[in-house]
Amino acid sequence: MKTITLEEIDNLDRRFRTNLINCLSGIKSMNLIGTKNAKGQTNLAVFNSVIHIGANPPLMGFIHRPASVERHTLENIKNTSYFTINSVTEEIHKQAHQTAARYERAESEFEETSLDTAYIKGFHAPFVVKSPLKIGLECVDIIPIPINNTQLVIGKVKLIQLDEKYLKSDGFISLHDQGIVGGTGLDSYLSAQEIGRYSYAKPDFPLEKI
Amino acid sequence: MKTITLEEIDNLDRRFRTNLINCLSGIKSMNLIGTKNAKGQTNLAVFNSVIHIGANPPLMGFIHRPASVERHTLENIKNTSYFTINSVTEEIHKQAHQTAARYERAESEFEETSLDTAYIKGFHAPFVVKSPLKIGLECVDIIPIPINNTQLVIGKVKLIQLDEKYLKSDGFISLHDQGIVGGTGLDSYLSAQEIGRYSYAKPDFPLEKI
Repeated sequence: MKTITLEEIDNLDRRFRTNLINCLSGIKSMNLIGTKNAKGQTNLAVFNSVIHIGANPPLMGFIHRPASVERHTLENIKNTSYFTINSVTEEIHKQAHQTAARYERAESEFEETSLDTAYIKGFHAPFVVKSPLKIGLECVDIIPIPINNTQLVIGKVKLIQLDEKYLKSDGFISLHDQGIVGGTGLDSYLSAQEIGRYSYAKPDFPLEKI
Repeated sequence: MKTITLEEIDNLDRRFRTNLINCLSGIKSMNLIGTKNAKGQTNLAVFNSVIHIGANPPLMGFIHRPASVERHTLENIKNTSYFTINSVTEEIHKQAHQTAARYERAESEFEETSLDTAYIKGFHAPFVVKSPLKIGLECVDIIPIPINNTQLVIGKVKLIQLDEKYLKSDGFISLHDQGIVGGTGLDSYLSAQEIGRYSYAKPDFPLEKI
């Protein structure tokens, strides 16, 4: 086993360190965040930092880097309040990765990566047609993280569109069965298989598969 | 396709809603967070909300719920500043899930779930022997999330211990090759396979597998 200290981390080559530290948090969610500015121009960017914030009210968040490629995402959310979170599947994972390119043109990443927009029930922000799990959110807070000038953007879930086939009777959504992928670090995409679902843990009771 | 609105979400059975909303963020990281109080008592709790905050300085965070099962985790971090993040593998995933039980006794979850503690280089908080990726962190900020009284706990990486075999020459760590698992919702554990790693996305250049 190799032990790496903070002092050694600080002295690593920048690219090596970026890869290493981005791998530490484990297997990550991969999502496309869709927005539209007041002029109607759409934007789409891949994020691996979407997290659950709470179920009641239904809240989700993601980390926005300072002056990052996805700056239009945050600008559009600040100006319009709305954004969408769209699952990445094996089918569209390369297109999702390509949204991270620094396009200088006026074209949207939707067009640049040939991902089509969908609009649902008049919701302002665009969804990704090919994402089987589409979530529309209204921004309710943007919390600064002073130590590195990132921000935690929090949205309240306003609508969900999904394939009923994968929605279980207890509310669980089977993601891996739909080809929804995870990721490691900045550039690795993973397919997943279920090992098991387990009962709510209680002291002195063995777990049951559910 | 089924569309569910916020109004419908608000009227769902509580357990159904909790499962549903916890599945929306995608495939999640699964980690065990280890702490030790000033009296030397250890604590271990499973979290599915660990995220990357930044690579330089190396920062990771997780969401702590209000008055949750893992309240000792936050108390110990507030009192001692130190915590560890330990990967969950297929081998130990049931023990990891079991750490969520509300043990009333004085025993640590390490003993209750038969996961052994490891100490590295005098670091205050305990690591999980069987986790192939062990990270020691010092808490640098605890940011309140007012909308639902959760908190974002942020730590700076002080040391990393890992198996060199899975550390690539560019700093990437292969997690799936070590049996490190992901999860969906509150109770599903997933094994992962790599689809591909891709080059940094650039406009007008096709992605390359790396």
